[in-house]
Amino acid sequence: MNIMYLALIGALIALVFAAVTASGVMKKSEGSEKIKKIAGAIKKGANAYLKRQYKSVAIFFIIVTILLFIMVAFGFMSFFVPIAFFVGGVFSAMAGFIGMKIATAANSRTVNGATKSLNSALRVSFSSGAVMGMTVVGLGLLYLTIWYFILNAYYAGDSAQIASNMLMFGMGASCMALFARVGGGIFTKAADVGADLVGKVEAGIPEDDPRNPATIADNVGDNVGDVAGMGADLYESYVGSIISSGALAIAAGLGANGLALPMILAALGIVASVIGTFFVRTKENASQKSLLSALHKGVYIAAAIVAVVSFFVVTGMLGMENIGVYFAIISGLVAGIVIGYYTEYVTSDHFKPTQTLADSAVTGPATTIINGFALGMKSTAIPVIVVVASVLISYFASGGANGFDVGLYGVAISAVGMLSTLGITLATDAYGPVADNAGGLAEMSGQEEIVRERTDALDSLGNTTAATGKGFAIGSAALTALALIAAFADQVKLDVSNLSLLNPTLLMGIFIGAMLPFLFSALTMSAVGTAAQKIVVEVRRQFKHIKGIMTGEAEPDYESCVDICTKSALHLMLAPAILGFVSPIIVGVVLGASGVIGMLAGATASGFVLAVMMANSGGAWDNAKKYIEGGKHGGKGSEAHKAAVVGDTVGDPFKDTSGPSINILIKLMSMVAVVFASFIMSVSIL
Amino acid sequence: MNIMYLALIGALIALVFAAVTASGVMKKSEGSEKIKKIAGAIKKGANAYLKRQYKSVAIFFIIVTILLFIMVAFGFMSFFVPIAFFVGGVFSAMAGFIGMKIATAANSRTVNGATKSLNSALRVSFSSGAVMGMTVVGLGLLYLTIWYFILNAYYAGDSAQIASNMLMFGMGASCMALFARVGGGIFTKAADVGADLVGKVEAGIPEDDPRNPATIADNVGDNVGDVAGMGADLYESYVGSIISSGALAIAAGLGANGLALPMILAALGIVASVIGTFFVRTKENASQKSLLSALHKGVYIAAAIVAVVSFFVVTGMLGMENIGVYFAIISGLVAGIVIGYYTEYVTSDHFKPTQTLADSAVTGPATTIINGFALGMKSTAIPVIVVVASVLISYFASGGANGFDVGLYGVAISAVGMLSTLGITLATDAYGPVADNAGGLAEMSGQEEIVRERTDALDSLGNTTAATGKGFAIGSAALTALALIAAFADQVKLDVSNLSLLNPTLLMGIFIGAMLPFLFSALTMSAVGTAAQKIVVEVRRQFKHIKGIMTGEAEPDYESCVDICTKSALHLMLAPAILGFVSPIIVGVVLGASGVIGMLAGATASGFVLAVMMANSGGAWDNAKKYIEGGKHGGKGSEAHKAAVVGDTVGDPFKDTSGPSINILIKLMSMVAVVFASFIMSVSIL
Repeated sequence: MNIMYLALIGALIALVFAAVTASGVMKKSEGSEKIKKIAGAIKKGANAYLKRQYKSVAIFFIIVTILLFIMVAFGFMSFFVPIAFFVGGVFSAMAGFIGMKIATAANSRTVNGATKSLNSALRVSFSSGAVMGMTVVGLGLLYLTIWYFILNAYYAGDSAQIASNMLMFGMGASCMALFARVGGGIFTKAADVGADLVGKVEAGIPEDDPRNPATIADNVGDNVGDVAGMGADLYESYVGSIISSGALAIAAGLGANGLALPMILAALGIVASVIGTFFVRTKENASQKSLLSALHKGVYIAAAIVAVVSFFVVTGMLGMENIGVYFAIISGLVAGIVIGYYTEYVTSDHFKPTQTLADSAVTGPATTIINGFALGMKSTAIPVIVVVASVLISYFASGGANGFDVGLYGVAISAVGMLSTLGITLATDAYGPVADNAGGLAEMSGQEEIVRERTDALDSLGNTTAATGKGFAIGSAALTALALIAAFADQVKLDVSNLSLLNPTLLMGIFIGAMLPFLFSALTMSAVGTAAQKIVVEVRRQFKHIKGIMTGEAEPDYESCVDICTKSALHLMLAPAILGFVSPIIVGVVLGASGVIGMLAGATASGFVLAVMMANSGGAWDNAKKYIEGGKHGGKGSEAHKAAVVGDTVGDPFKDTSGPSINILIKLMSMVAVVFASFIMSVSIL
Repeated sequence: MNIMYLALIGALIALVFAAVTASGVMKKSEGSEKIKKIAGAIKKGANAYLKRQYKSVAIFFIIVTILLFIMVAFGFMSFFVPIAFFVGGVFSAMAGFIGMKIATAANSRTVNGATKSLNSALRVSFSSGAVMGMTVVGLGLLYLTIWYFILNAYYAGDSAQIASNMLMFGMGASCMALFARVGGGIFTKAADVGADLVGKVEAGIPEDDPRNPATIADNVGDNVGDVAGMGADLYESYVGSIISSGALAIAAGLGANGLALPMILAALGIVASVIGTFFVRTKENASQKSLLSALHKGVYIAAAIVAVVSFFVVTGMLGMENIGVYFAIISGLVAGIVIGYYTEYVTSDHFKPTQTLADSAVTGPATTIINGFALGMKSTAIPVIVVVASVLISYFASGGANGFDVGLYGVAISAVGMLSTLGITLATDAYGPVADNAGGLAEMSGQEEIVRERTDALDSLGNTTAATGKGFAIGSAALTALALIAAFADQVKLDVSNLSLLNPTLLMGIFIGAMLPFLFSALTMSAVGTAAQKIVVEVRRQFKHIKGIMTGEAEPDYESCVDICTKSALHLMLAPAILGFVSPIIVGVVLGASGVIGMLAGATASGFVLAVMMANSGGAWDNAKKYIEGGKHGGKGSEAHKAAVVGDTVGDPFKDTSGPSINILIKLMSMVAVVFASFIMSVSIL
């Protein structure tokens, strides 16, 4: 029997588990009519946005698919590539759509669960996250195994052909991810920033107040940005790490088993994740700490299972002589957990960094910004050192001293190791926005104090898991991008002198690459600014022209805000997306493959650092504000609080738009480079 | 006759010109007793700071010199290196000291000049800048030519020995520069931010108001940070670019003439700069635009002279077959001017970017920060593209297609070309703080309206030239660092596979390098925050306990603020300085020479981008505030103005501490790598 049937079975287990969990969630009651009505508005807005997003993106996909077919006609790639590109985009979109569907169904059910107990609310929201996590890994692995079987039949089992084709099959997911992350990120933060600027600052009404016309848009944003966007991001890392390690397996001379290993590991990770989810439950009246440890428990159990079983998988498939590959897997798993932990340390108000940041709010917004910025910059050192250590361990453990290729396979496998438990890590992450939405619903539907306390506990925990998840997403993106760079270099077969750092086209590629994440972030941040400005104008208009909003007698026009966010997001996501797509091609045409490799390395390094900084500054500002709201430095309404709100508002696009989008940028550029490699090689000027 | 006598003559011309200009400045009258008294306080504070700084730094220098002698004992370097290190530090300190002396003498004379006419005020302040510029280039070139003659005698004219020794002679200047830039940067911004936070925001008194106890410290800071710091920065670039191109000349097989060329070019640039200074004068009632073009005129004339004469120098010294080297010089010259121009476009309130930023202040501090940040990030693209184009042109024009070495010599020479007119470009830059001080003096001594208008015109122009100067400093730092990286690679003689981007130690070096400027900036920014906090506490204390400050009946205790800034700066500059010094050694010991090369490339690329971003965001925030103060969006005291002040305060450490310090970081790390190359090669683990 072909061992790859195990991968297919793994994918199906994930999807069946997701379906069963989803039907369990759907069976729960949505609660009161009021909750239903508000949840319905959020659902409608999210649906409408995603549909229009897919429509816009479809045009882009059709154009690129045609372009790829032209490339096929010129012999630059196999005819599978355009098909896989399109299908890959559809799969990624499906994963995002299902995740969003379940999240918008679970928010009301979480509130209703919270009327009963904390545990039942946690179960509903976490189950919804699990559906998302399992759908992402299930569809990702299904996509890859189906292609494996098709290519295996077409190329009569020639592993090298299968691997080099599959390497190009990640671009569809990357493109889709970029649109989902950037579009969703702009939507969610435009609504959030806009709602805060007028609601909190000008009108003096609390967050999630139903009188604020932008509040539904804000909640829609959580779903389209944090759920669908985050899912697409990690879907892409997942697929990218598997296909790049497959390609490097061939270069390393590990043949069919080396190619199959990452997919088998993924299947193992799925089973481990399913087991892990059963351990996520909590007692009533649990503290935030014990809630967090309930989530951690599931993740750690899944990781432990992978750590133990993969030993037998590796030695069984590659033999005892390649035991080093096992250590690469472990180093990836450990690196993911360490980065997640460290992110929590830096951004949680239980620890000193964020508390000190809150102290600096006493001297006003300027010192808050300076210190938050410094905090984020300082926090880049540990994640970089962890990734560096993990890469070097993976490389040398796998036998890199005997040749680049086998070592680089180790690096790629460490990314697969890190992502193997994605089913459950994504669950703990995608749970956050659901809890956030539930908090909003509880507020808007005027639930009892105890219900809001419960949803607040879940929401606050969600902030922590979101920060951890971001650390994980960035770490895995860096490793995946490195694996893709290695795969690209292997593919273009440059001689060593062209790969030399002293080759000026390569060195200048590093310069350009280091700049691109900055330019990209500038575009996404300006987009949030522009869109938020429109929301501000609209909310002010409604407050002025719709009589009775403030007294609660008239209902604001929520839909117009949703509509403005939708239009702005779809319009403004184009420029950054195109930048990511065309940069490797333009650099390739002008500077050649050496320039592209330099650019990818430069962008991965500077993008990783910038993304960590933005995520951590943003997270720390958010929690410093929450810390002050908890009563420190004068609490809500104090000057310190006002300064902290400025920090939080600056942090919004940092942590939820620009920062996480950089992950995708670096992976997308690598993917585009891989797909257009032959084209670049044949037309480059220098 | 040895052609190098021309270089010596050039150095002496610069120093004589500086001395003559200085005595011309000193002959002017200082004006009223009141001006003299305040200027005396500034002078005293600046002197006291520099003396204590030199004392602290001397300890560091003595320790490192001993360390280097130990290295000499183990055979890792020639015994010239420790001596040159120490002497280099002394020369750099001397340049900073003289520049600071003349600046603190010229501020009062500029005010007095302004009582007569705008032109005489411009002449005094610009002359003071010219003294600084000429001292920097004169001492730099003198230092190098003296060493040349010593080594020439010692090694009996063996160019290779001379060049490889001289390559290591830049570290003293680099270390001194780091302390001057970081220490001065912390001093100046701690005083500025602290003074603003209490004075402007809490007490509601204008900038430079004599009632503010931190105002003298603020003016001292301009001298020790912007004058001495900037001078040391460019002194280091100047020396670094010359010695690295000398070393690469040997590798490129261009022998003694290739080694001499950069120094002859420097001498040519000095003569051209002297000529240029005579063209800087303006009519009375000149607009800011015509003031600026008066300064530009001097720079352009100097550049044109270099552009024309260097053709004959290159062809005469290297023969017509190396005409490509001439184009490298031109590409460096042009790149410097273009980056300077673009910086002006981005940060001046005469153009759209900064005006749009000012518009966003209407919606509060959060949008001001987000948009200023986005502006800085977006503004990195053009400078990167200009540097990339300049490097590639220099490389290929010089014959890089025939071998790395000759191409890299071209890159190094382009840095020399960019810096050849430093005598005058630094003059236009160092003029700024003098004008700024003069504005403060005019305000504090209660001059007539017309005098203040004139000093304001000069000061406002100084902001533009400071921004341009920063662009130039960053551009030249990047080119110099690239040349040093190439020289390092040449020195350690790694084989191509070790230099490959796929070598994981090199690739991980890039990651670490990309992170270092962020960590370094975090340290310098926190340092400003910490020191500013102390000033805030002290100023509040004085307002509370010294009766009559606010009514003008009692004088505040200026010295205590100067003292706090001095202590804080000297204490807090240590950590970032040590980070810069030890990083290449630690990375070298752990990852080997490949790791160091990767680190240097990563740090140069990400540091360049980050430095441009910080300088431009900071400059734009500053000028957006000035734009609003000019009456836009409600002018002074409006909500928009308050938001803009927050932006300006955040921008202060960006543009005057962290951003410009990054220049030095990347050069210092390269210098340390060069000096410790043999040590690293013999002890590295991987």
